[in-house]
Amino acid sequence: MAGNHNRPMFAPLRNDTFLRACLRQPTTHTPMWLMRQAGRYLPEYRATRVKAGNSFMGLATNVPYATEVTLQPLERYALDAAILFSDILTVPDAMGLGLSFGAGEGPKFAHPVRDEAAVAALQVPDLDKLRYVFDAVTSIRRALDGRVPLIGFSGSPWTLACYMVEGGGSDDYRLVKSMLYGRPDLMHRILDVNARAVTAYLNAQVDAGAQALMVFDSWGGVLADGAFQRFSLDYTRRVVAGLQRHKDGQRIPVIVFTKGGGPWLPEIADCGADVVGLDWTVNLGRARAAVGAKVALQGNLDPAVLFAPPEAVAREAVAVLDSFGPPQRADGGWDGHVFNLGHGISQHTPPEHVTALVEAVHAHSRRLRNPG
Amino acid sequence: MAGNHNRPMFAPLRNDTFLRACLRQPTTHTPMWLMRQAGRYLPEYRATRVKAGNSFMGLATNVPYATEVTLQPLERYALDAAILFSDILTVPDAMGLGLSFGAGEGPKFAHPVRDEAAVAALQVPDLDKLRYVFDAVTSIRRALDGRVPLIGFSGSPWTLACYMVEGGGSDDYRLVKSMLYGRPDLMHRILDVNARAVTAYLNAQVDAGAQALMVFDSWGGVLADGAFQRFSLDYTRRVVAGLQRHKDGQRIPVIVFTKGGGPWLPEIADCGADVVGLDWTVNLGRARAAVGAKVALQGNLDPAVLFAPPEAVAREAVAVLDSFGPPQRADGGWDGHVFNLGHGISQHTPPEHVTALVEAVHAHSRRLRNPG
Repeated sequence: MAGNHNRPMFAPLRNDTFLRACLRQPTTHTPMWLMRQAGRYLPEYRATRVKAGNSFMGLATNVPYATEVTLQPLERYALDAAILFSDILTVPDAMGLGLSFGAGEGPKFAHPVRDEAAVAALQVPDLDKLRYVFDAVTSIRRALDGRVPLIGFSGSPWTLACYMVEGGGSDDYRLVKSMLYGRPDLMHRILDVNARAVTAYLNAQVDAGAQALMVFDSWGGVLADGAFQRFSLDYTRRVVAGLQRHKDGQRIPVIVFTKGGGPWLPEIADCGADVVGLDWTVNLGRARAAVGAKVALQGNLDPAVLFAPPEAVAREAVAVLDSFGPPQRADGGWDGHVFNLGHGISQHTPPEHVTALVEAVHAHSRRLRNPG
Repeated sequence: MAGNHNRPMFAPLRNDTFLRACLRQPTTHTPMWLMRQAGRYLPEYRATRVKAGNSFMGLATNVPYATEVTLQPLERYALDAAILFSDILTVPDAMGLGLSFGAGEGPKFAHPVRDEAAVAALQVPDLDKLRYVFDAVTSIRRALDGRVPLIGFSGSPWTLACYMVEGGGSDDYRLVKSMLYGRPDLMHRILDVNARAVTAYLNAQVDAGAQALMVFDSWGGVLADGAFQRFSLDYTRRVVAGLQRHKDGQRIPVIVFTKGGGPWLPEIADCGADVVGLDWTVNLGRARAAVGAKVALQGNLDPAVLFAPPEAVAREAVAVLDSFGPPQRADGGWDGHVFNLGHGISQHTPPEHVTALVEAVHAHSRRLRNPG
């Protein structure tokens, strides 16, 4: 069974609210999940991480541990989707760039891509090097046993390129933007390789059992208008166009999330995705009016709200739901809203505040559908 | 003369292009200046800083040094405005919070404002504590001798509050947002004090000789839609409403710049300012179509463009000017564009790339007005 990854058999899905909202179909409540929901704010996550040698990649590359931590938030909270526990930088790591995480630091690449020779040497990696990811997808899907759908994901071509050129995080993106403006030919070559790699990587996640896909364009928002379209969105669009969108008779929704992408919402909504993720700067009601007939929207509570007392958390969650409004339109059709944060949940979040959030979202979104 | 700050006599202005563009009057070229134009990318700045004990506040509090560094970029480049050399955190420092700059670090406050008692103790500072700023304004205006106008500035009430509560910079604004969502009453009290202090501070800069004013809402863009309007823009609006807008028969233009404020452009354009600053994520042409009949626009080149070779710098500068288009409208009236970066110039900028930028902006903007 474990060796037969191309035709896994999975239990039927019992809660498809998330998939339905992604596809703008009727739902009884607004589904929710949280970016980085399996994470350091949970004591049980920290305990598993200790077992894995206190290493992020130790967790991500170990199939039983990755499965365990993916399911932890679902044990605590009535979330409507699970997301693969992994990192956005697995693909460049498989390209040979040498990913590591220093203690208390962000990701680092031992071999950043900064000159013509390094760019020329770049290749779509052998997917066998990412087998641990696909095995985790299959293992998690089995462990979910049909409870909620499993989301697979990748970084966008541009976001991966930022890390690959900078060699890690950056405040000013000096190296990658110097290349973009000074040697656009090199930048386009990196993005082309990344787009092909990300497409293959996401399709393999679907083969392994992922029921929805998300592209994290975490750094698209640092680009200038014009550059964003040419160096980020065009390559995200290529990825989306190359994805398998049906598996075993089910539509595989694709979510594209550009942090800071508010100014480009109409263009992002045209990239072929089913769902556009929004950060908290965007007015959900105005976004729905602009693009809600074309895509579902995901978001967009400020994760910092979760630092406030539970009453404030509930109040702000209600405000987000009310901003979108009842998903059923006056004409009887449905628009789609998936509740989420506008960024990953902070490690400093008190876990009981998330309880208040989930209860508020589910209760108020049912009221929105059945007023009075 | 030095003792008579309320009625200084200044030389007549020889280049009023910047003021005219701010007020949407006809101009022969698009005026330009650069945020943080007096700064570490200039070797002459670094030399003066060494004389001042290699201390930022040593420079800012010393009137001759502050005058010297303010004028340095004007000696190198044909810029159309000067901006007071100072820091946005002088006001909370004067409130007694104890500002310091560690070596290679950002600003720190010894006494951050984090509890009810600290908030209650907060008061509009005695403006005499900021005398060094007003003296610098008068000294710089004299030294400019009418060459170009002098811009005074302040941080916005919200941006000051971020630093005051966090005690310095922050990645996640955890403390200030916890207060905002959990104790909005305390946050409103801080913002009220800040708004009154900033208004008095800016008016005193006008009395000392400032010919335009800019409010830096550097951290408005980290707020959620809804929270931005209530906790940032409402207080900026109060400041703008309290400013003296004429001095010696001249209109004093006010510029409001919210980094990341693109999603709220129509609301920001209604805050009473003459000019709205834009970062590089905003499409200038669309912004002009939306609000150009109400306010002039300032921006919006990505400062990272200046890392690229001079030909690329010139090309991107032309793209920004073309995005705004010829400022004279088809109906014969004029819209206003002040060329700038979308954020402060980086210390890593090669000074000769700025030469290429200034030449490209001035040459191409003249061509835009006289095509063919």
